[in-house]
Amino acid sequence: MSDDLVGWLVDLDKLRRMTQRYARAVDARDIDAVAALFHPDGVVDGARGSAPVPAYIDGMRNAPRIFESGMHVLGDPLIDLEPGADHARMDTYAVVYQFRPPGSTEADLVLGIRYLDDLVRHGDHWLIHHRQAINLWTRQGLPQL
Amino acid sequence: MSDDLVGWLVDLDKLRRMTQRYARAVDARDIDAVAALFHPDGVVDGARGSAPVPAYIDGMRNAPRIFESGMHVLGDPLIDLEPGADHARMDTYAVVYQFRPPGSTEADLVLGIRYLDDLVRHGDHWLIHHRQAINLWTRQGLPQL
Amino acid sequence: MSDDLVGWLVDLDKLRRMTQRYARAVDARDIDAVAALFHPDGVVDGARGSAPVPAYIDGMRNAPRIFESGMHVLGDPLIDLEPGADHARMDTYAVVYQFRPPGSTEADLVLGIRYLDDLVRHGDHWLIHHRQAINLWTRQGLPQL
Repeated sequence: MSDDLVGWLVDLDKLRRMTQRYARAVDARDIDAVAALFHPDGVVDGARGSAPVPAYIDGMRNAPRIFESGMHVLGDPLIDLEPGADHARMDTYAVVYQFRPPGSTEADLVLGIRYLDDLVRHGDHWLIHHRQAINLWTRQGLPQL
Repeated sequence: MSDDLVGWLVDLDKLRRMTQRYARAVDARDIDAVAALFHPDGVVDGARGSAPVPAYIDGMRNAPRIFESGMHVLGDPLIDLEPGADHARMDTYAVVYQFRPPGSTEADLVLGIRYLDDLVRHGDHWLIHHRQAINLWTRQGLPQL
Repeated sequence: MSDDLVGWLVDLDKLRRMTQRYARAVDARDIDAVAALFHPDGVVDGARGSAPVPAYIDGMRNAPRIFESGMHVLGDPLIDLEPGADHARMDTYAVVYQFRPPGSTEADLVLGIRYLDDLVRHGDHWLIHHRQAINLWTRQGLPQL
């Protein structure tokens, strides 16, 4: 029983890491690192509708660069995983800061987002098979000094 | 010794989950789910004074709805728990966003809160026996777009 | 193998705790508690350049008090640690709120910071041997009510 629990705790840590890896990857515009977190047969439902993972990733690669930089501050995920199971759910709160280039007359943005992820075990790691990204709120960013 | 440590790690995870369960429950105004986190003999000390848990929960049920929605972004708790102990302490930082209904002329609010919780083991889970919610700061929310 | 993994999980928890201990220590201006997290032979690279740990700590002790209070909201760290290793890396996102004294005409500040820490095992705990604190962005704080 203890071995099962240890494996379960290791899985929880792997899943928790994925939230922070996603934040670093998307903030660095490292699209390959983002893609590595998603199952190629998966689906992402977001503000721009529903897309298969390959189309979602291509959309990120080809998106016009509106913001100069961003910071995805993701909280501790609420993880649902039975010991030994190959399927998990994560519910993660995020506050996302999006910054305009210097000299822009448009406001920065701050968004509240909730990521609801279904994940599947894939070898010794996990992949997001379905993501629902819910935009809870959007506001102007804080003023510059 | 290893079994004790595994049990301790499982307890830490159960405690960590409670912070995120609280956030989801209070943001969904799911008062039963909030109540499930507190010991019925417990006490909550907050901005409106000290209240036994049943009165605190009733207060939530009957509170006039001032805000349209809210997001309780709770950080990773600092947990004090000895392996095998039946009592734990958690110290959790939160930034709470409170949004007015559309058309309101009043500002949204953002609050910095520190939750200091004493918890007791209750069967295979944990309950908050005493919560001190310290309002560190309150500010106007970010402007709408 | 399971014992190694349990030790590794305990290490991850000790490392995770350090981020929250740092936040509480610096917000309480408890400089001794901050110092206890750093190796005396370490180095901190921050906004004011690079400093050996003793000079960094002295700088905190002697710094003029510009802000009335602060809240360091640190996220879940992304931890790189091999099981059994004596060296770890942590990558932690933070949003830092800095508040002026009442009556000040200057704006509060909000900063986005990324802490990149190299840590070394030291007996039964861990110490930061090298910290790079990257100020990702700085903005005015939220307006008072």
